[in-house]
Amino acid sequence: MSQDAYTLPAFSFSLLKKVTTDFGEARAGDFLTPHGLVETPVFMPVGTQSAVKMLTMDQVAATGASMILSNAYHLYLQPGHERVARAGGLHAWMNWPQPILTDSGGFQVFSLAHLRKITEDGVSFKDPVRGDLHFIGPEKAMEIENALGADVIMAFDECPPYPCEYDYAKQSMERTHRWLERCFKAHQRPQEQALFPIVQGSVYPDLREASARFCSQIDAVGYAIGGVSVGESREWIQRVVAETTPQLPEQKPRYLMGVGTPEDILDGIARGIDMFDCVMPTRIARHGSYFSPEGRQIIKNQVFSDDFAPLVEGCLCYTCRNHHRAYIRHLVRQKEATGATLLTIHNIFYLVQLAKTARQHILAGTFQDFYTQQKRGLEARLNGTPTPGRTMA
Amino acid sequence: MSQDAYTLPAFSFSLLKKVTTDFGEARAGDFLTPHGLVETPVFMPVGTQSAVKMLTMDQVAATGASMILSNAYHLYLQPGHERVARAGGLHAWMNWPQPILTDSGGFQVFSLAHLRKITEDGVSFKDPVRGDLHFIGPEKAMEIENALGADVIMAFDECPPYPCEYDYAKQSMERTHRWLERCFKAHQRPQEQALFPIVQGSVYPDLREASARFCSQIDAVGYAIGGVSVGESREWIQRVVAETTPQLPEQKPRYLMGVGTPEDILDGIARGIDMFDCVMPTRIARHGSYFSPEGRQIIKNQVFSDDFAPLVEGCLCYTCRNHHRAYIRHLVRQKEATGATLLTIHNIFYLVQLAKTARQHILAGTFQDFYTQQKRGLEARLNGTPTPGRTMA
Repeated sequence: MSQDAYTLPAFSFSLLKKVTTDFGEARAGDFLTPHGLVETPVFMPVGTQSAVKMLTMDQVAATGASMILSNAYHLYLQPGHERVARAGGLHAWMNWPQPILTDSGGFQVFSLAHLRKITEDGVSFKDPVRGDLHFIGPEKAMEIENALGADVIMAFDECPPYPCEYDYAKQSMERTHRWLERCFKAHQRPQEQALFPIVQGSVYPDLREASARFCSQIDAVGYAIGGVSVGESREWIQRVVAETTPQLPEQKPRYLMGVGTPEDILDGIARGIDMFDCVMPTRIARHGSYFSPEGRQIIKNQVFSDDFAPLVEGCLCYTCRNHHRAYIRHLVRQKEATGATLLTIHNIFYLVQLAKTARQHILAGTFQDFYTQQKRGLEARLNGTPTPGRTMA
Repeated sequence: MSQDAYTLPAFSFSLLKKVTTDFGEARAGDFLTPHGLVETPVFMPVGTQSAVKMLTMDQVAATGASMILSNAYHLYLQPGHERVARAGGLHAWMNWPQPILTDSGGFQVFSLAHLRKITEDGVSFKDPVRGDLHFIGPEKAMEIENALGADVIMAFDECPPYPCEYDYAKQSMERTHRWLERCFKAHQRPQEQALFPIVQGSVYPDLREASARFCSQIDAVGYAIGGVSVGESREWIQRVVAETTPQLPEQKPRYLMGVGTPEDILDGIARGIDMFDCVMPTRIARHGSYFSPEGRQIIKNQVFSDDFAPLVEGCLCYTCRNHHRAYIRHLVRQKEATGATLLTIHNIFYLVQLAKTARQHILAGTFQDFYTQQKRGLEARLNGTPTPGRTMA
């Protein structure tokens, strides 16, 4: 599209540095959006229903998060995208002045299984709560995402399940490509909202390559890799990433959807991914687990009952600066919501800071060492090394 | 007990001002404790299990709360008072550097009904969760509260149910008085912890008067009125307060236990009460209700679906400064915990500020007008006046 000479572009991506790793090239970039800068690599907390579970927005901001995610499909059902638009758009609705990305919700619609029917036009489905019939196709998805007004909006795609037959993966991918073209035609706010294509193709290298090439033909602000983290192994995710990233334009941000664990994020960064999101830090917090350099820990464990050390020694999150394991363990055991809140704060901070630290190491040229050291810590846990803590005699 | 001439007393209460009201005398005071000043009248949020439900401690502090409550009985069962002592006491355990008050838990033990047995010595009861047998008498209660280390600790009393026969109320009150003497004998940290006697006597004026006189004979730092808010009507609570306060030493703080609603707090202040606590602001928040000058509101009401006004116009709490009714309604309907957190913040702020504002009016000599205006607003709601809000066309 043409642009007024006196108007600055709303979006830009500056690739600041690339470093070679054992698995590809890790990158540090500055992704500028209408609501501010996103320094990449970045981990984006998820606020599906327009709130990050268990947290207030000042607590989200205090984790160091810049861009956060929400979900167009969920907000379409409740409270309705038109209501969010009346409130002044999603930034005003949930009072998050920094960048926002909305997923179209294709993934969620397709996970409804027997409640939905796919045609060339789009998807018919029943509201799983109220039972009334809905239809979302590429045009409707754009109408919803344009109304919500996030900085980055995702194309409406089919996310096939895993495992998936080659023939269906191909047919689905081709339909997703046709939908992608319809999304770009229907998108009404290209100056304010960046529409990201989503690479599909299941676990088949030739399909992934074809999809990456197809998406790359479109001059988009950024590109996403979808259809991962749907049940396949960690190795498959990274194989797909390794096969896909070289096909994507180098000077554009790359977003690996729904990933992941600290391990997955490190592996993704090592292969050239810039943006990550996952519900894991919030979900495992609600189940009483937290991230540590030695892997995931279960706070209810008896070993923490008299442990007056923070969750992670030296961690600068609100939780670790203010509370110890014994207290948080007590809250979680007594089913006090504050316990889940404290773990959520730590877990989101942990992933946000992991991506920030990776960025610093990329810029300093020391990423491969950082990667090796981090992975060694995570593997130590798998071998049963106990977590040290400050235990009173 | 004797005191070193060079040691400042850890506790003091300065009665700054008294004003006559239609119901008695309202008072403003400064209650100094080892962990700081409590300006009275004061509303104290409740953190039964050593956390204020749904909130982190910085969120509690941001409501303007000074002293908060916890419960010795609950902390004795979990995590154990000895564990809290090993953590450095309750202030360190839950990271609340300001004043703390612990209830002995008599009220909670006696509410176990068929699980407990009362003797002159104390109460035997079964842990309602684990089923193991416990015994708490005055000496044990003091051991627990001394270990926890709160600034104000409550005597171990029997809180008879409502309604209660005169004979049982008298017998129970007399036992509570004997227990009170045993509590003072057993209390090991009188320089650091102020032990408050609790006036009992059910709804019987002569018993209340006798109990108030008995308690007043003891030179305590402050006094509490217990056995209210156990099912009797609002009018009964205020009758008991009106009958009891004149019997209590004027120069000592008076604490009305477990009260209450905005109405009850205003009525208590008008009759000379200095300290209040109640689980209501947190409990009604978890059920989707919030306080307003026009009475309690239910956020799920359809009328709020497109209402982009704050919960209370002009309210300076975090919730009202950052979010509107339509958003909070959406979160509560979607069962997002953040909705309950936002309502809890507002409700606690509301009661803390109500007491603070009452104090300002007492000091300015305008309390009776403030009282009348506040009550008029609350009554307007009862007559069905709708809550105004900013609704988009």
